[in-house]
Amino acid sequence: MKVTHNGKSKHFRTVWFDKTKNHIRLIEQRLLPHQFKIISTKSYQETSQAIKDMVVRGAGAIGATAAYGLAQGAQIFQGNGIKTFEKHIAKVFQTLASARPTAIDPINAMQSMLSRMHGPSVANRKLQALDLAEEFAEDDVTHCQKIGHIGEQLIQNGTRVLTHCNAGWLAFVDHGSATAPMYSAHEKNKKFHVFCDETRPRSQGAALTAWELSQQGISHDIIADNASGHLMQRGEIDLVIVGSDRTLGKTGEVTNKIGTYTKAVLAKRHGIPFYVAIPLSTIDWKINSGLKIPIEERASEEVLRAWGVSDSGKRLSISIANPSSTARNPSFDITPPELITGIITPVGIIQPKKLWKNRLKLGYDNIKKNLCS
Amino acid sequence: MKVTHNGKSKHFRTVWFDKTKNHIRLIEQRLLPHQFKIISTKSYQETSQAIKDMVVRGAGAIGATAAYGLAQGAQIFQGNGIKTFEKHIAKVFQTLASARPTAIDPINAMQSMLSRMHGPSVANRKLQALDLAEEFAEDDVTHCQKIGHIGEQLIQNGTRVLTHCNAGWLAFVDHGSATAPMYSAHEKNKKFHVFCDETRPRSQGAALTAWELSQQGISHDIIADNASGHLMQRGEIDLVIVGSDRTLGKTGEVTNKIGTYTKAVLAKRHGIPFYVAIPLSTIDWKINSGLKIPIEERASEEVLRAWGVSDSGKRLSISIANPSSTARNPSFDITPPELITGIITPVGIIQPKKLWKNRLKLGYDNIKKNLCS
Repeated sequence: MKVTHNGKSKHFRTVWFDKTKNHIRLIEQRLLPHQFKIISTKSYQETSQAIKDMVVRGAGAIGATAAYGLAQGAQIFQGNGIKTFEKHIAKVFQTLASARPTAIDPINAMQSMLSRMHGPSVANRKLQALDLAEEFAEDDVTHCQKIGHIGEQLIQNGTRVLTHCNAGWLAFVDHGSATAPMYSAHEKNKKFHVFCDETRPRSQGAALTAWELSQQGISHDIIADNASGHLMQRGEIDLVIVGSDRTLGKTGEVTNKIGTYTKAVLAKRHGIPFYVAIPLSTIDWKINSGLKIPIEERASEEVLRAWGVSDSGKRLSISIANPSSTARNPSFDITPPELITGIITPVGIIQPKKLWKNRLKLGYDNIKKNLCS
Repeated sequence: MKVTHNGKSKHFRTVWFDKTKNHIRLIEQRLLPHQFKIISTKSYQETSQAIKDMVVRGAGAIGATAAYGLAQGAQIFQGNGIKTFEKHIAKVFQTLASARPTAIDPINAMQSMLSRMHGPSVANRKLQALDLAEEFAEDDVTHCQKIGHIGEQLIQNGTRVLTHCNAGWLAFVDHGSATAPMYSAHEKNKKFHVFCDETRPRSQGAALTAWELSQQGISHDIIADNASGHLMQRGEIDLVIVGSDRTLGKTGEVTNKIGTYTKAVLAKRHGIPFYVAIPLSTIDWKINSGLKIPIEERASEEVLRAWGVSDSGKRLSISIANPSSTARNPSFDITPPELITGIITPVGIIQPKKLWKNRLKLGYDNIKKNLCS
């Protein structure tokens, strides 16, 4: 998306490949919203470290970064032996896959590349790696764009949209999932307003989504996570759009950032449409119950502290809680299908309980092959 | 309540009066949870400033502080003329009442004193002021204790209680409202667990309620405001108890810290009992609709920043949000009676819709006199 940096407005993706130098270029997301900076990773090991250190984060974005990383690693191979090349690639794969052990996107991205890297020579396979990584990133962009065009119809002049956490373009290669309909509507000159939940404990809504929206000049306000119920009660929210980390194709249950379930319960009570925007790679066709999804409990420090910038411009974290207290930090929750008005996918808006019926349209066959290979 | 300070455990109230020196002593609440310190105000002007600067905060606590402040101001009067004394007292009253213009408690506390300060001489009225201020503080303590004894029955061994914000002893003279049942249950050696909502934007749950509970050795965890829905979904919360800033006697609607309504909606969905603990002074017998309660929108800075202590021990605030974004900050919300299981009052647990029917028991007559005087 467009970013205004040093007074100039320019289009950026979260990640892209510099083929001449064999470098991957990334937005250093840990510095946002206070600083916009592009960094380069000069080897696949550096790329893996950048994923690990969360220089880049978000399902689609780390998927594409790993895909580029695999291509980057392929280029440095010296020699012509297919077997040694495959061994080398397996090492690169392992290095990139282990950067975020619980994330599925890097693995899916690289596996889908490997399943098609069958060229007759090493030179040919190196080229294939470049092409397939580029194709993966392009697909991510296209999927998000389609979500935008389809979801944009939900936003009218005057609509007040609530979103939670950051399912924005920073989490993908471009456009984002929950934000894509907003960017499309903005392109069509619709005038609407967005409420960004702060999204404690990591405050991605206040930091990243608000930054994204302000870069595009979209009217928005940050609110405490506590405030959305009150705003709904007073008739100040018309529509909710969130993203998802994993959506169950068999049941229509949606896993997303902690707090999403609460927004869905509130929206239901107030008769406010609640949509989830997802690319196809987010659908899990295997698991048949939300209770089987393990909910990651992250470090209690995230709840006990806050991260930001002091008045003197120093980046730091501070203790905001009673020092001798402990915290619980479940990071995701599960929203049942009866609270969801529709799932905005690249192939249309689908009722959560009808995902399974629409599985062929939603790419189940391709994914099934991957699952069973 | 008991506070362990410099290795010694001692009982403290939030505010008390040193008659010998004509000083009011206060816990400096702005330093909590990182530092426990007692300060003295040496004049009624200093006392007013302490209320204004939020050295002391919370309905009951500022009510008692203002009552003591009126007595403190009365003592410095020189002379015997009743008329001049009354003029002096009016000035003291005005100074203390203007410290927190929207708060009703200091005014109610001082008015109830004035309505009974009719002694024959100045000397007599000075003594009356001291006695009446002490009586006000004692009543606050007794009311909270009664809430504790009545509400304690809701807590069993193993109960997991959720509370929001700080309706603890720091907000009153002692015991608190929402926390009083917990302290009573703890005294009876019941083993239970408390989840403290962080309560953004001011984080009173993470800072004050968690500090209170840890001082009493009550098992607790801080959670992000986003997490309670998930915990309810997984069956990890059995009971919710919150406080209230204003409860409508005519409708049973409860005004409390932003986010309370959301907890009530979630509790209803999960069939979890939701109680509101209030002293009688919190009941508003006049207003007949929650929509008539103005909802204070506080400074957006509260949402855009966080306050705490750095690793080097420095107290500071940091920016946690996109710098060019704005924020909305409604500070209270209104919970309708159908979401409330019961109101825990000093005279028993009452259904919210039956407050009016029980108005005589709830002290409506006394308050009516005040309202109409």
